[in-house]
Amino acid sequence: MAKKNDSLLIFPGSSSKQLTRAICRQLRVKPGECQSMHFSDGNTFVRVGQNVRGKDVFFVQTLSWPVNDNFMEILFYIDAFKRASANSVTAVIPFFSYGKGDKKDEPRVSIRARVCADCLEAAGVDRIVTMDLHAPQIQGFFRVPVDHLYALPIVEPHFRRIVKKNDWVAVAPDVGAAKLVNGYAKMFGVPVAISEKVRKGHREEASVRRIIGDVSGRHALIVDDFTISGGTLIATAERLKREGAKDIYATVAHGIFSKGSAARIEAAPIKELVITDSVEYRFEPLPKNVKIISAASLFAEAIHSIHHRTSVSELFPF
Amino acid sequence: MAKKNDSLLIFPGSSSKQLTRAICRQLRVKPGECQSMHFSDGNTFVRVGQNVRGKDVFFVQTLSWPVNDNFMEILFYIDAFKRASANSVTAVIPFFSYGKGDKKDEPRVSIRARVCADCLEAAGVDRIVTMDLHAPQIQGFFRVPVDHLYALPIVEPHFRRIVKKNDWVAVAPDVGAAKLVNGYAKMFGVPVAISEKVRKGHREEASVRRIIGDVSGRHALIVDDFTISGGTLIATAERLKREGAKDIYATVAHGIFSKGSAARIEAAPIKELVITDSVEYRFEPLPKNVKIISAASLFAEAIHSIHHRTSVSELFPF
Amino acid sequence: MAKKNDSLLIFPGSSSKQLTRAICRQLRVKPGECQSMHFSDGNTFVRVGQNVRGKDVFFVQTLSWPVNDNFMEILFYIDAFKRASANSVTAVIPFFSYGKGDKKDEPRVSIRARVCADCLEAAGVDRIVTMDLHAPQIQGFFRVPVDHLYALPIVEPHFRRIVKKNDWVAVAPDVGAAKLVNGYAKMFGVPVAISEKVRKGHREEASVRRIIGDVSGRHALIVDDFTISGGTLIATAERLKREGAKDIYATVAHGIFSKGSAARIEAAPIKELVITDSVEYRFEPLPKNVKIISAASLFAEAIHSIHHRTSVSELFPF
Amino acid sequence: MAKKNDSLLIFPGSSSKQLTRAICRQLRVKPGECQSMHFSDGNTFVRVGQNVRGKDVFFVQTLSWPVNDNFMEILFYIDAFKRASANSVTAVIPFFSYGKGDKKDEPRVSIRARVCADCLEAAGVDRIVTMDLHAPQIQGFFRVPVDHLYALPIVEPHFRRIVKKNDWVAVAPDVGAAKLVNGYAKMFGVPVAISEKVRKGHREEASVRRIIGDVSGRHALIVDDFTISGGTLIATAERLKREGAKDIYATVAHGIFSKGSAARIEAAPIKELVITDSVEYRFEPLPKNVKIISAASLFAEAIHSIHHRTSVSELFPF
Amino acid sequence: MAKKNDSLLIFPGSSSKQLTRAICRQLRVKPGECQSMHFSDGNTFVRVGQNVRGKDVFFVQTLSWPVNDNFMEILFYIDAFKRASANSVTAVIPFFSYGKGDKKDEPRVSIRARVCADCLEAAGVDRIVTMDLHAPQIQGFFRVPVDHLYALPIVEPHFRRIVKKNDWVAVAPDVGAAKLVNGYAKMFGVPVAISEKVRKGHREEASVRRIIGDVSGRHALIVDDFTISGGTLIATAERLKREGAKDIYATVAHGIFSKGSAARIEAAPIKELVITDSVEYRFEPLPKNVKIISAASLFAEAIHSIHHRTSVSELFPF
Amino acid sequence: MAKKNDSLLIFPGSSSKQLTRAICRQLRVKPGECQSMHFSDGNTFVRVGQNVRGKDVFFVQTLSWPVNDNFMEILFYIDAFKRASANSVTAVIPFFSYGKGDKKDEPRVSIRARVCADCLEAAGVDRIVTMDLHAPQIQGFFRVPVDHLYALPIVEPHFRRIVKKNDWVAVAPDVGAAKLVNGYAKMFGVPVAISEKVRKGHREEASVRRIIGDVSGRHALIVDDFTISGGTLIATAERLKREGAKDIYATVAHGIFSKGSAARIEAAPIKELVITDSVEYRFEPLPKNVKIISAASLFAEAIHSIHHRTSVSELFPF
Repeated sequence: MAKKNDSLLIFPGSSSKQLTRAICRQLRVKPGECQSMHFSDGNTFVRVGQNVRGKDVFFVQTLSWPVNDNFMEILFYIDAFKRASANSVTAVIPFFSYGKGDKKDEPRVSIRARVCADCLEAAGVDRIVTMDLHAPQIQGFFRVPVDHLYALPIVEPHFRRIVKKNDWVAVAPDVGAAKLVNGYAKMFGVPVAISEKVRKGHREEASVRRIIGDVSGRHALIVDDFTISGGTLIATAERLKREGAKDIYATVAHGIFSKGSAARIEAAPIKELVITDSVEYRFEPLPKNVKIISAASLFAEAIHSIHHRTSVSELFPF
Repeated sequence: MAKKNDSLLIFPGSSSKQLTRAICRQLRVKPGECQSMHFSDGNTFVRVGQNVRGKDVFFVQTLSWPVNDNFMEILFYIDAFKRASANSVTAVIPFFSYGKGDKKDEPRVSIRARVCADCLEAAGVDRIVTMDLHAPQIQGFFRVPVDHLYALPIVEPHFRRIVKKNDWVAVAPDVGAAKLVNGYAKMFGVPVAISEKVRKGHREEASVRRIIGDVSGRHALIVDDFTISGGTLIATAERLKREGAKDIYATVAHGIFSKGSAARIEAAPIKELVITDSVEYRFEPLPKNVKIISAASLFAEAIHSIHHRTSVSELFPF
Repeated sequence: MAKKNDSLLIFPGSSSKQLTRAICRQLRVKPGECQSMHFSDGNTFVRVGQNVRGKDVFFVQTLSWPVNDNFMEILFYIDAFKRASANSVTAVIPFFSYGKGDKKDEPRVSIRARVCADCLEAAGVDRIVTMDLHAPQIQGFFRVPVDHLYALPIVEPHFRRIVKKNDWVAVAPDVGAAKLVNGYAKMFGVPVAISEKVRKGHREEASVRRIIGDVSGRHALIVDDFTISGGTLIATAERLKREGAKDIYATVAHGIFSKGSAARIEAAPIKELVITDSVEYRFEPLPKNVKIISAASLFAEAIHSIHHRTSVSELFPF
Repeated sequence: MAKKNDSLLIFPGSSSKQLTRAICRQLRVKPGECQSMHFSDGNTFVRVGQNVRGKDVFFVQTLSWPVNDNFMEILFYIDAFKRASANSVTAVIPFFSYGKGDKKDEPRVSIRARVCADCLEAAGVDRIVTMDLHAPQIQGFFRVPVDHLYALPIVEPHFRRIVKKNDWVAVAPDVGAAKLVNGYAKMFGVPVAISEKVRKGHREEASVRRIIGDVSGRHALIVDDFTISGGTLIATAERLKREGAKDIYATVAHGIFSKGSAARIEAAPIKELVITDSVEYRFEPLPKNVKIISAASLFAEAIHSIHHRTSVSELFPF
Repeated sequence: MAKKNDSLLIFPGSSSKQLTRAICRQLRVKPGECQSMHFSDGNTFVRVGQNVRGKDVFFVQTLSWPVNDNFMEILFYIDAFKRASANSVTAVIPFFSYGKGDKKDEPRVSIRARVCADCLEAAGVDRIVTMDLHAPQIQGFFRVPVDHLYALPIVEPHFRRIVKKNDWVAVAPDVGAAKLVNGYAKMFGVPVAISEKVRKGHREEASVRRIIGDVSGRHALIVDDFTISGGTLIATAERLKREGAKDIYATVAHGIFSKGSAARIEAAPIKELVITDSVEYRFEPLPKNVKIISAASLFAEAIHSIHHRTSVSELFPF
Repeated sequence: MAKKNDSLLIFPGSSSKQLTRAICRQLRVKPGECQSMHFSDGNTFVRVGQNVRGKDVFFVQTLSWPVNDNFMEILFYIDAFKRASANSVTAVIPFFSYGKGDKKDEPRVSIRARVCADCLEAAGVDRIVTMDLHAPQIQGFFRVPVDHLYALPIVEPHFRRIVKKNDWVAVAPDVGAAKLVNGYAKMFGVPVAISEKVRKGHREEASVRRIIGDVSGRHALIVDDFTISGGTLIATAERLKREGAKDIYATVAHGIFSKGSAARIEAAPIKELVITDSVEYRFEPLPKNVKIISAASLFAEAIHSIHHRTSVSELFPF
């Protein structure tokens, strides 16, 4: 990446218009002008509305529903920026939805996250900024630099007021989340428990086989990178209750909330579920026990650091 | 591409299940087993259900609505086949929808067809089979071989019985279609007329400014590569009528028919609109004046030629 | 592309020495020092005569006769500039001669324009500037940005004084030129006519089968992207005359004029044929009815915009 | 990959001579002739001793000490095979040592596993066969197919006779190993416990902060993908003892055993540590409580399947 | 490269029609049908006249005058073969003329041989067969396999009858040729002498500063890889004469003989200059003291070995 | 490469700590902070200790013993710098040890220098600075720019005081070194002699078959690019003595001095062997007749020129 440009250009993708506005407000810049169209035949078309020649461009687009439309839109914008002679294009992808497809855990499947990484690079992307990837190894799917941010620093102040060392436990709803939960546990000085999840096939429901570690008599903070239907969180919370846990809080970086999930989350024994605004579109009004903390400042800081070539590393909590 | 395999494997994508079955029936093989899932968060997942190690695989998927979902599905299948050690993967894409995005006709847009070509190649595709590309130059967007088929040989017998030399004219509804229409005109020995279309921005309606060439007192055959809403065809037909044309027929390789178009097409002064089955999904029942001629035999022949390393060139009408 | 450099470096290729001088005069810079040698065994050798480390270099070379020598010279200069650590290399190719090879219009031929694009990119080119490509899709053969200029803005003032709305017609000598002619027709507010050309094989003569559209009693302006022998223009002009056209003018961006063409062009019923200086070398003295308008200002402006990172898009007439 | 060759060629790298011989014995072929030299200046040189033109070549080399010498040797052999016109080259890398470098878990480090993957692909490898990668995501660092084998099927029969459902527990010595341990636990029908490891910087010692899950009164089977000094295994075993565990067994796919580790492992409260022969060179005689089970049959089966284009998937236990 | 094909296809390039016929005669196959055209505007066009789908194709084209036309023709044929779905394309380039451009021996020049290698690979070549490269390192400019043949085995029988151990010397006309001459010297058991050449700039004349080694009273065999004007050979021969050498013979793999060189070579004190038919086109009748030995059998053998996947290495004399 | 950065960052690799310090002293900058670790299992780990975002980074690492460890360390640092968003990474490799592997001089070997070049480029290097490559063609193995320095300018002042025109001879210990020796001979105005070396296989000893050229009664300066055991130099010196040479000096850019070579070099009839500090680590104390002249100023100048985008070419002596 070459030297900083005079002016900072941040363009909003279809799926991250509010977040981009919030980021721009923090950085006191106007969002870039661009236009996305989705035609009746299903084709996506994009057009950049201002000169970007020689500029360092940031394009913000999360991979929320409709994921594939949003992904293709990123590719087309990268191409449009590059063909319009931008100096560099940074794709800011708050929620990299296809991170779930990070391995061949059964025969003859695709490693979808690598396919997406290859497409982004084929389109000409110069850098990725993202948050709470499903696995940190996904950075290695890219040859271009990835700035991998974490939601922890922005949710920490909130939980700092609530979580107490002596009678809390941080709970991983899945062995895969154990490492992430470890970070939260260390930050708050509490022990870890792990829920052993049993998932059948690729359907999204899962059940809890066993809680490993002590939770009885403790308040619990369940931590994960994302939730779609809330299913795993709810199943974990219910099991924690049965195992004698007291108040149950939860936090995920990315709250998708598929159709029909709102009522179930509201009805679950979860006192508060804290998420970020990495995903904007939701099918239904937010459940009452869900609280959003904006990640705009986190992304604004990262973009500012990248633009001014200062270190981003102090943003990493682990 | 290496030597022919013993067994021919043809897998159906989500958007071309009927066409694949028809092709397989012609070639007397069973469609390959594979499974596509679209999760509630918008992610696509694919799984190949049988051993493909060392095989030459054909994957059939048209780019009809929802185009982006179908496109990503192709990428994931290619990756799944390659990681499962297929010898080669041929993507059969009857309608390459993003062919419309074949040039930078205004500043700071993407050449979307090239982006798609690069993604297919990044995913590992070895060959493309497609039909009636929006522009023949699109073959050049690919480094891998492209077998470019035309609908003309399969609709020709139908029109041969109808079109007569002396009082017919082949009409291009757009200067861009002039070359294609030329092929039909030569085939049937009739003159060409061209409708000068005026399109505003990227909306899909268009109006006819002028008909270049004589149409008065002649039956007309309008020819184009695709229609979405039928708008251009209808406008052209109406104008032809006003200019004194007699019966009006039309043919396009790819009939998409967006929402609300059926009634308008039925009401238009088009006696018969002949399309192929390159696009399967339609939002509404087919208009009564539309006739489908299956391209299955065309694709079956091409696949057979590729598999047995015989020449595909005799399928090209021009 | 990185930030602008202090000094603008423009190097002349063997085939564009005059044009480069004219461009440099406009931009008030001295042409860069470089040396091309063509040895008696047929090998080309190039040497850059001044420091280019960290500079943005422009190399101007049109693909006129001898095309392949000139093309290889471009490749070697790009390599020499890159290995000498230039920051970026822009190849300014006023006439991209191999643009004609833009599709597989018969079996087992090469898409030569794509081969050339791949070679330029393999040699390390960072950007292309060219004029009136044979097809706009050729931009998509490149992954690097292409600034595609048009001769129209520089010939427009000349014809503005001549062409009148009410009794003129813009004529495409070929259906392939219809889109280009459309641009001229709109600019001057005149109707379009299209000549249906019949070409046999790859020999360069062609005959006119039919003129589509009204030309009788009108002055005609034939427009095309290039002419080699003048054959198509002459055949079209003669046919227009027979169809009752009055004065016939013609304009092409690129006038090659192969051996023996001068006398035939002079003898043709073409009052004036306007070309640019995109091609310098000609086998014979210019025909008397040919007028050259220099494209130097057009290229100078584009280079200036690229160098100063301002928008080039206002140069696009369409 | 193209069609199977008549003859199967398996070449032994410097670090896997015994394993290659064992594999070849199972497949009844003679190991290929090749020669590696390590000169006094530290350079590695390789030479293939027989014709490989048009053959499918397997090269077996584990990444044991000296890892970098062995890695460079793989690259040079791949290049030698490809330049000698082998049809395909499969690198069989039983222990992919740099798998530990699979993420950027601190600022400004390399993702070494991706660097290695890129080098292998740059050298021209066509396929990788490996065993118990540190993280399954590493498959996604490669664009070429990876056949990822697991030691579980070959150690399972041994432990089947020992491990009983009711009073055993499978122990992950680290949250990162939790997923792997899960597989063993399911196989033997026992619960899981996880040791929370605290590691300081990049030194190899680690201490156990806490055991999550019940181990008191149970026999324990510690499972991990590799051990270098035995440190983590020993620390875990000692802590398990303190927490009341009964007999402690352990198994890792890859036993490296650095200098000085043998005595410490022998002295540890580990009744038996089962490893495979994926790593050959050891600095000292094997500790008495270590048992080696050969993975030769596993690799032989995989190579046989690849060579004959049958499915490898049934070798995957998970 | 995949398995051998049933039929061997060898196509003649414009510059190697005779050699291709000779090779085909030896292998008892008919040359492939193809057609090259060079248009009056300087463009090259190629067309393959028969089905090559799934075939292993050999295309024979030497880089003699006009070198750049011939080189571009190779690129276009490779592209045409690949887009026509050939299984593999081997470019047989008897004289790789740009081999002279193998290093940056002055600032800001191109490494032209690498540029050519990259273009061949960008066009899709799968393998190169060539003879007596200017430097053996040029093989390393290619990622694809190169079969590098030497003329020595075919000229050896001829000189075997002439050269005697005791009173002959092999002479390198240049330090750069010393290694090649070494091979001849060893073959015939004679000592080596080296002519120190002084070359000014890039002009082709050179003068001899000094002969290193004893030549007085000995017959001399001057050996080099190519000669263009004969200048270096003549200057060396004349100097050898002055230093007391007796009969002087010379041999080069590639005899180009630029305009005007024939008379000078005939007049030089060279009893016989032996060349191969790697270069066909010559500007003038052969000098009388030049003898051609055909390399057709050498190339035929190499092609046969490649086609049947047997070792080519026994053809290497060194 | 983009525009110069404010601050110059030079990082020391494990094998070039002293040289880097010396370079930094000359340029008045502090060496960058970084840390390399070599674990007991043989793995290498690297970490950059300061912000490099947007900087032009120079990393100095020679390929001395242990060559492969040092090479992998370069790759990992390049990756670490790039993923940490350095603007560009220049690898300064004073001794490119694998330069010896520059050709396929026997069947089925690797072109190791090309493999290394490909790995460096795959890791993301932007430029190479090196000294006295084994063959100048190796520059062509890289696509990135290579600044190839020569030791001659820094040893010249030393020998200028010793070497006299009339009774000296420059000696190539090998035909391969003839070109290099030519440069020295011209610089000092002395004749050249060449030692014909006979080497058996890949072992490092060699014997002298013959000295070509006059050496009797002359002082000799043997010149080569590197020496490992001193074997070739010693054999040449002894033979020169036998042929009547007077004082014998020698100079090589890279003095490796493998185990046991010190005593042999001291005992040889070589009055002084001048080397540079391109290689730091030596197995034994320096032989008394060896003199080191530092190349730090040479590299400092090159780095300064690159950083400030001034020409490096004046550093080239030839």
